[in-house]
Amino acid sequence: MDEGTAYGLAPATHDKALTEVGPGSPMGELLRRYWHPVGLAADAGATPKPVRALGEDLILFRDGEGRPGLVHPRCAHRGASLYYGRVEADGIRCCYHGWKFAVDGRCLDQPCEPEGGKLRDNVRQPWYPLEERYGLVFAYLGPPERKPLLPRIDVLEQLGEGESLEADDSSLGGGGPPVIPCNWLQHWENVVDSLHVPILHGVFSGPQFVPAMAQMPECHWETTGRGVRVTSYRDLDGGRRLHRVTEAAMPTLRVVPSPRLGQFGPVESIGWVLPIDDGSFRIYVAGRVKQPGDIGRMRSKMNGKFWWELSEEEHRAFPGDYEAQVSQGRIAAHSAEHLRTSDRGIALLRRFLREQLAVVANGGDPSGVARGAGADPLQHFANCGNFLAA
Amino acid sequence: MDEGTAYGLAPATHDKALTEVGPGSPMGELLRRYWHPVGLAADAGATPKPVRALGEDLILFRDGEGRPGLVHPRCAHRGASLYYGRVEADGIRCCYHGWKFAVDGRCLDQPCEPEGGKLRDNVRQPWYPLEERYGLVFAYLGPPERKPLLPRIDVLEQLGEGESLEADDSSLGGGGPPVIPCNWLQHWENVVDSLHVPILHGVFSGPQFVPAMAQMPECHWETTGRGVRVTSYRDLDGGRRLHRVTEAAMPTLRVVPSPRLGQFGPVESIGWVLPIDDGSFRIYVAGRVKQPGDIGRMRSKMNGKFWWELSEEEHRAFPGDYEAQVSQGRIAAHSAEHLRTSDRGIALLRRFLREQLAVVANGGDPSGVARGAGADPLQHFANCGNFLAA
Amino acid sequence: MDEGTAYGLAPATHDKALTEVGPGSPMGELLRRYWHPVGLAADAGATPKPVRALGEDLILFRDGEGRPGLVHPRCAHRGASLYYGRVEADGIRCCYHGWKFAVDGRCLDQPCEPEGGKLRDNVRQPWYPLEERYGLVFAYLGPPERKPLLPRIDVLEQLGEGESLEADDSSLGGGGPPVIPCNWLQHWENVVDSLHVPILHGVFSGPQFVPAMAQMPECHWETTGRGVRVTSYRDLDGGRRLHRVTEAAMPTLRVVPSPRLGQFGPVESIGWVLPIDDGSFRIYVAGRVKQPGDIGRMRSKMNGKFWWELSEEEHRAFPGDYEAQVSQGRIAAHSAEHLRTSDRGIALLRRFLREQLAVVANGGDPSGVARGAGADPLQHFANCGNFLAA
Repeated sequence: MDEGTAYGLAPATHDKALTEVGPGSPMGELLRRYWHPVGLAADAGATPKPVRALGEDLILFRDGEGRPGLVHPRCAHRGASLYYGRVEADGIRCCYHGWKFAVDGRCLDQPCEPEGGKLRDNVRQPWYPLEERYGLVFAYLGPPERKPLLPRIDVLEQLGEGESLEADDSSLGGGGPPVIPCNWLQHWENVVDSLHVPILHGVFSGPQFVPAMAQMPECHWETTGRGVRVTSYRDLDGGRRLHRVTEAAMPTLRVVPSPRLGQFGPVESIGWVLPIDDGSFRIYVAGRVKQPGDIGRMRSKMNGKFWWELSEEEHRAFPGDYEAQVSQGRIAAHSAEHLRTSDRGIALLRRFLREQLAVVANGGDPSGVARGAGADPLQHFANCGNFLAA
Repeated sequence: MDEGTAYGLAPATHDKALTEVGPGSPMGELLRRYWHPVGLAADAGATPKPVRALGEDLILFRDGEGRPGLVHPRCAHRGASLYYGRVEADGIRCCYHGWKFAVDGRCLDQPCEPEGGKLRDNVRQPWYPLEERYGLVFAYLGPPERKPLLPRIDVLEQLGEGESLEADDSSLGGGGPPVIPCNWLQHWENVVDSLHVPILHGVFSGPQFVPAMAQMPECHWETTGRGVRVTSYRDLDGGRRLHRVTEAAMPTLRVVPSPRLGQFGPVESIGWVLPIDDGSFRIYVAGRVKQPGDIGRMRSKMNGKFWWELSEEEHRAFPGDYEAQVSQGRIAAHSAEHLRTSDRGIALLRRFLREQLAVVANGGDPSGVARGAGADPLQHFANCGNFLAA
Repeated sequence: MDEGTAYGLAPATHDKALTEVGPGSPMGELLRRYWHPVGLAADAGATPKPVRALGEDLILFRDGEGRPGLVHPRCAHRGASLYYGRVEADGIRCCYHGWKFAVDGRCLDQPCEPEGGKLRDNVRQPWYPLEERYGLVFAYLGPPERKPLLPRIDVLEQLGEGESLEADDSSLGGGGPPVIPCNWLQHWENVVDSLHVPILHGVFSGPQFVPAMAQMPECHWETTGRGVRVTSYRDLDGGRRLHRVTEAAMPTLRVVPSPRLGQFGPVESIGWVLPIDDGSFRIYVAGRVKQPGDIGRMRSKMNGKFWWELSEEEHRAFPGDYEAQVSQGRIAAHSAEHLRTSDRGIALLRRFLREQLAVVANGGDPSGVARGAGADPLQHFANCGNFLAA
């Protein structure tokens, strides 16, 4: 009799607590204890820009005096969208009846009301605080009393001779288009899944980076206080040995040294995986570059083409991170997985996330949150990178 | 600590009783006590035309003897759509097995049955009664025993020298395409929201009509027995004063004088806001014109273009009623609104609608229903219009 | 007072037990006791091909040694899709971490694990057994212990002089495109609905086949042990009489002689109606032909054009089986039907299906299942066809 057929297979399910990010969900609340990038600095301007983060639709703008603002899209008056609003010196004005709001949501004018609205202080447009750093606009969508300091990151602060910082919003490292239609965790787990590299990026899509990366590495995983770090060992020409250190750190940092091994030393760039909602994400990156535009030049090509230039036949002949992760489904079916020893990074990262979920559920501050007088927001990632050992 | 942020914001909800129109819903039952236009007279012809009204899909046609018919789309026999039916002298015939139905749903033929169906009188295609007036086809979708007389309207009956009547189905006054993808009430409330005019149609989209309309008016609202009327006062050149009287009347009439102030006197046209379903509507208009085609020439342009010719940038630079109302959401989030003194028309209209809902719930006839011997279906709107005072 | 209007009409419902085919549904379980075609022989090749049958998504391929395979699309390891897999000599390999599976789901390699996965025998990719016959690939999606023999069919086994077999996957007889967006039963019932022919294919779409078929036939229906058979009698020129015998047989066979009456004798082809899911189906056909390509030439044209070449106006002027059946709705609304004497074939077929559902519910084998030593899988359909009587 046939064994192991698909007949009677239980419907597959995903781990909701680890993946779903909307308001009030466990992971949504955990992620809301951190700052997340929601745009490049230039995205905050005189034209209201719709952004979507953690399942919330918002409008990003910058008032005439240079202050960035992030507000609920529907006007507090009658709900017309501030997408059609006009940005003025001190705020954004709704097109329908002209209510104007400051970047912190205060109502500055109600022109159809006597005296511009004697009670206008009684209403406030829902808003979120923003800070700008490294060319990115960061938002805090969490409980106000828990707002941490916006972290500084050592490898983005210490610029070498002739280096400058550059930011990118095109989901570098995602292997596809700027908005990737699957759950953020499928990508973030991939950061510590070092053994897929020689298969997906080697056997399947040719040596996609450099030949050495197609070598099956020896890996060592460890839980850090802020996530999971993996060190991959590979032999290089001339008896040298590559120690490649990669890390997934709270809240969604991808700390991945260049897979092209162009230079050795600490990691050049930091990525933030922004969950747009349960079923899509995008990646913001900030990095040290030698020449303007270097960040954009990090983008992989397959068969000499960008991802969006490939035919369906080429996507199948040269599958990459996008194809592997998106094809896991809108949210991966965890109930049907079979993790093995080579998936140790995934297992450690999920365990770490579950611990952090428990911390928040118990009223605590999750890992890496710096808050209050004397708190130090500097985070150290210089131990991640491509390093040479004799 | 930050105040008024969007964190923890309750999910917004809409007032279902005021907005939803499907069969059995409170507003659906209230609206079903009236006649509604479902097409131009020419829409009822030899080619079956799908129409959707109050959440119901129907087929409009006109038999060979000139009688208009409105029937359920699925054949009572096996459910094939009468969209593929053939219109004959005395009814419409289904393409699948040939059953033929008269405009009142009686089954006239079952050609696959012996003798054309000896028991064919036992089956009836679900149908609705129609009447034609002012170039429009009106349908009554309510309980048969409550069917009122189809109203006559004074300003459409009394034609001046050289005037004729013209009908339009392109949603004149809606500020967008013929089918507008939001709840009907968002538009109907706008009829008595006179203070948005100088903002949306003045400050934002230039003086869209004539300069005087960009003036902030003094408004006086009152509940009539059939809805809400607003009189807006503006100063004109030469010391004259404009009294502009606009009305929202049951069931969905928009009685809006021309905002171009081309002439003074009673309102030229009447609009009916037809709820297609909970999330879309269209407007039928009938009006007195001097020249054929005048009705179509009432359609607004922005930046010299029709709405459907505008780029997304132009929609944002010149937002109009469509942009304001559709951006309130498929159904506006009433729980998040903050009504003020300038929203008095909206508040009165909702209160009036709630009273009418209660009348129907208690078994009564709602406002304006004329029925039975001696009932007078004439409705008076000549007191609406643009009028000059010294 | 108006009678029979659509006011208060109860929402229409469909018979779930007769129509829905997903895993665990009554009809889904009944149909899963049989083999169904899921592709042409050529569809199983070196490029993984997505197929959907009975609501299940699967991947069809053929390994390098010629064995066809049908597996669950998501890799048992982490769920990446085998759509991006690579077909090798002995199986299909996932692009993400390289697990390889044989056509029977056994895991042959886990290249990221020590020794290729010492415990790889503990995991199995969900799969289904396949057999090839008549140019088609048949799959068995049911309980393994109930797997029947794949039937042989007399009229496809006994080839005449110069005849050969040909297979087709373009839904011949469906009257539309290869994938037809309505429930499979709407089409299958049509097989024994002989009286629609002179209406739909005669009165409406001209004599679509040959003039004789536009004649209203005399019909005799009977339940066979495997479904329903209908004999339609028509008078031909010269005093001859046509006996046309058509049958719907388990599980979804359409045994329909050519409506073009090109020759007399047993039926030339057999169709299998494959329920893709509850709301769509396709038809596979195998038949005896004189010349290669004859099967494709069986496809009907309307107004001299293939279905997909017709304008919307032409679809309405020349409605066929597609228009009639798809317009019944995604799943026909059985609660609103009115069956009459001419629908006897439909009534018998539903009664027969309900009996078969009961057999399966009671633990039995449904009609036509041949299993075990000595079972004879030959099915006889030579009594179906177009026959001449004096």
